[in-house]
Amino acid sequence: MRFLLQCKEVDILSKEISHILDTVLERVRPTLDEREKVRMIIEKITRVAKEVSSEFGIHFEARVLGSIAKDTWISGDKDIDFFILFPKKIPVQELKEQGLMIAKKIAEKMHGTYKEKYAEHPYIEAHISGYTIDIVPAYLIKYGERPITATDRTTLHTIYINNKLSSEQKDQVRILKQFMKGIEVYGAEIKVGGFSGYLCELLIAFYGSFLDVLKASRFWRPWRTVIDIEEYYDTRDYRRILKKFASPLVVIDPVDKNRNVAAAVSIKSFSIFKFASKRFLAFPSLKFFFPPEERPLSRAEYLSKIAKRGTCILGLRLQITPISPDILWGQIFRTLKSLKKFLERRGFRVISEGAWSDEESEVIFLVEVDKEKLIPLEKHMGPPVGSEEEDNFIRKYLENTRVLSGPVIENRRWYVYRLRERVEVEEIIRSHINEISFGKDLSKHISSLTFGKNEEVFDFSLKNSYRKYLRKWLDKKYSWMT
Amino acid sequence: MRFLLQCKEVDILSKEISHILDTVLERVRPTLDEREKVRMIIEKITRVAKEVSSEFGIHFEARVLGSIAKDTWISGDKDIDFFILFPKKIPVQELKEQGLMIAKKIAEKMHGTYKEKYAEHPYIEAHISGYTIDIVPAYLIKYGERPITATDRTTLHTIYINNKLSSEQKDQVRILKQFMKGIEVYGAEIKVGGFSGYLCELLIAFYGSFLDVLKASRFWRPWRTVIDIEEYYDTRDYRRILKKFASPLVVIDPVDKNRNVAAAVSIKSFSIFKFASKRFLAFPSLKFFFPPEERPLSRAEYLSKIAKRGTCILGLRLQITPISPDILWGQIFRTLKSLKKFLERRGFRVISEGAWSDEESEVIFLVEVDKEKLIPLEKHMGPPVGSEEEDNFIRKYLENTRVLSGPVIENRRWYVYRLRERVEVEEIIRSHINEISFGKDLSKHISSLTFGKNEEVFDFSLKNSYRKYLRKWLDKKYSWMT
Repeated sequence: MRFLLQCKEVDILSKEISHILDTVLERVRPTLDEREKVRMIIEKITRVAKEVSSEFGIHFEARVLGSIAKDTWISGDKDIDFFILFPKKIPVQELKEQGLMIAKKIAEKMHGTYKEKYAEHPYIEAHISGYTIDIVPAYLIKYGERPITATDRTTLHTIYINNKLSSEQKDQVRILKQFMKGIEVYGAEIKVGGFSGYLCELLIAFYGSFLDVLKASRFWRPWRTVIDIEEYYDTRDYRRILKKFASPLVVIDPVDKNRNVAAAVSIKSFSIFKFASKRFLAFPSLKFFFPPEERPLSRAEYLSKIAKRGTCILGLRLQITPISPDILWGQIFRTLKSLKKFLERRGFRVISEGAWSDEESEVIFLVEVDKEKLIPLEKHMGPPVGSEEEDNFIRKYLENTRVLSGPVIENRRWYVYRLRERVEVEEIIRSHINEISFGKDLSKHISSLTFGKNEEVFDFSLKNSYRKYLRKWLDKKYSWMT
Repeated sequence: MRFLLQCKEVDILSKEISHILDTVLERVRPTLDEREKVRMIIEKITRVAKEVSSEFGIHFEARVLGSIAKDTWISGDKDIDFFILFPKKIPVQELKEQGLMIAKKIAEKMHGTYKEKYAEHPYIEAHISGYTIDIVPAYLIKYGERPITATDRTTLHTIYINNKLSSEQKDQVRILKQFMKGIEVYGAEIKVGGFSGYLCELLIAFYGSFLDVLKASRFWRPWRTVIDIEEYYDTRDYRRILKKFASPLVVIDPVDKNRNVAAAVSIKSFSIFKFASKRFLAFPSLKFFFPPEERPLSRAEYLSKIAKRGTCILGLRLQITPISPDILWGQIFRTLKSLKKFLERRGFRVISEGAWSDEESEVIFLVEVDKEKLIPLEKHMGPPVGSEEEDNFIRKYLENTRVLSGPVIENRRWYVYRLRERVEVEEIIRSHINEISFGKDLSKHISSLTFGKNEEVFDFSLKNSYRKYLRKWLDKKYSWMT
């Protein structure tokens, strides 16, 4: 019973934990060398931005924001948020057009590759000397002013965090971020549905330290927890706020009281973090931060795993062209939900479902069902007795060779027990493919759809990342829990 | 489209129907010979009752009530309701004791066999010269007086119907009763859950004739229909009445406005009657009244039927000792419901269920499920994340060889995917038999329980009635519909 700690054990445990946190910090704190490299690239891009400004005669301010500006970035991270900030008097349309033009110019002058991206508004993602630099146009606003576009908030976040956190706390943010990464709940992307960097910063700002966040999370109850650092709301209004945001966790943005910083956190990520926190405090280990690398599943392992289960593993593979990961994963999750519903409506029991994608060229949907074939007999519900459709139903089924029992009245409805037209899962999906709502972009590639069952599913992609996913999807184990 | 009748067709149809009804009436109207026999037996029992009265010095009035007294009995019926009626001043306890004693005496003096029975209070069922005579003690009450015991109502019903119905209408009652028998919804017993004789009489009293009842039933909507012949209630109160009685059909008893004469009518019987009425009017046939006798199912037929279905037919057989059919069928239906729920909870899909009993020595439960064996893998739900049971769940499953996937968090709960202990349906039932609630009287015989699957089920009883039931249960066809 490690949860009921004796005083002496607490000491030992504390020592163990602080040793672990020291090790983590050593690995997540950027080195002097890293910092110097980042400093140099920032210097260069700032100089280029100034050149572009004077060349085009357009006035803007260039500034690094985000985790680098806040000094909460993690060693090894190669992401830089570079903002080009325009005065508020410029109309939004002009800001977007000029901003994008200037961002492209900067990327070109840096001799990097780049592409246009779109989040809340368009920006440029440039790849320069191994770094990914997001060049984002936004308005220059002062602290306390209302943001005009969503990206303007970034300035305010940077100022807020720099005012709020000590450099020790910034290290605590790094530890928390690494913990979130280790347990795979880091990031607000749709694929993850987890905790953003800014959210990690706010949690440290509110609770004080990494361990305090972990300890506090024990008392978080989903859809019942509000964190309001700046006390914008009266605690008596929390019920209303919870209803308004309708998220497992609500963290009021200190720079915008109408925004929930934790909006992306899914109930699953919320629950995993809550449990991992408790688990780490009882069984501290470096594994929470740096889980062992997953080995790709081998064919032999795969075959032995699926043989034990006695289920039917179904694979659906689509070839795609690149789209934004958030759009892609939004559509993937919706397709999975629709596929699951479809199969259950048709008489299969869906045990588990999942999807893998390289986000470039292929998506593989995986569904585990209880059988490959339905039994021939199907109980088919007809209309209520006395309804308008009654006569048609009876005419249809009274002398029908597919009917094995009925038409018969059960309670107030008609039923027939008939032979199915199709019993095999692949056939059923193929012949009713239009009942499954693949998203807009996935639908475009529906002609590339291939099916596979059981052993066939293993060869659906040759990529290691797929084989790793396959292991994870089958084992469903947390490496930090073993 | 026979439902949209042309004028000429109506004429033809009417002729056809009236010919059928004439034929039916000929067969259901008691013959002079029958009437004479009944008259003689009533004369004799009345004489015997008088003797007993003077022998014991107890004053009561003896009277035939029920369908014979109302002249609504059907040719071939051999049931006589003989009431011994006591003055109201006698206490209930005394009436029951003396009544039963006198009833026994009468039965003995008639040299018949008899047994004690119990409905709302005890009575004697005597078998004399081929007739079943219920000798029932009750209070002698005048029309308009409140009944003291439930059986006292019978006097009032007899008076009411005799005042209300012409002799032509009594023939219409006979036709309606035979229709109800033919479509198997006649009788308020639990096994049938149908229309009692008195209810048939009231329907004729309200609508006028057999065909009018059939036509009217088209407008009956379940849980929405109130028939209140004596207009005890305001139509604006019908919603309240429907709520109070909560039955598919409400027919207010003209002699007791707090009683629903149709209380026994199940939604199934209600729906069958509604549909059969419509069907008869469109496709009139003698089959509705006198359906062809069902042939017992042969082994070859049985095997060919079940082979097509691909399901698993499961039989559970109990040996019983005789109990009252209403108690027996009450327990049978409850057991079936419980068995169905149990199997579904355990992972089987129940396609159909039913039961047969000779009401003497055996009960056979039949269940059709989608498979004989579950797949080895079972998705098992654990406690919510953060709950008190969480630690136990994880301790139990973390290093468990039966676990194939997990423990894993899905939404806010823990799950494991584990190997089942048992997969075979018979084994599962046997090892969890206590989770199935057989009624009190069936439970007594639980040690006699035998299981069978598919072809074995055919030999569960050698009785023709069982083999007929088996055909009906598998075919689920209405003989009047073909």
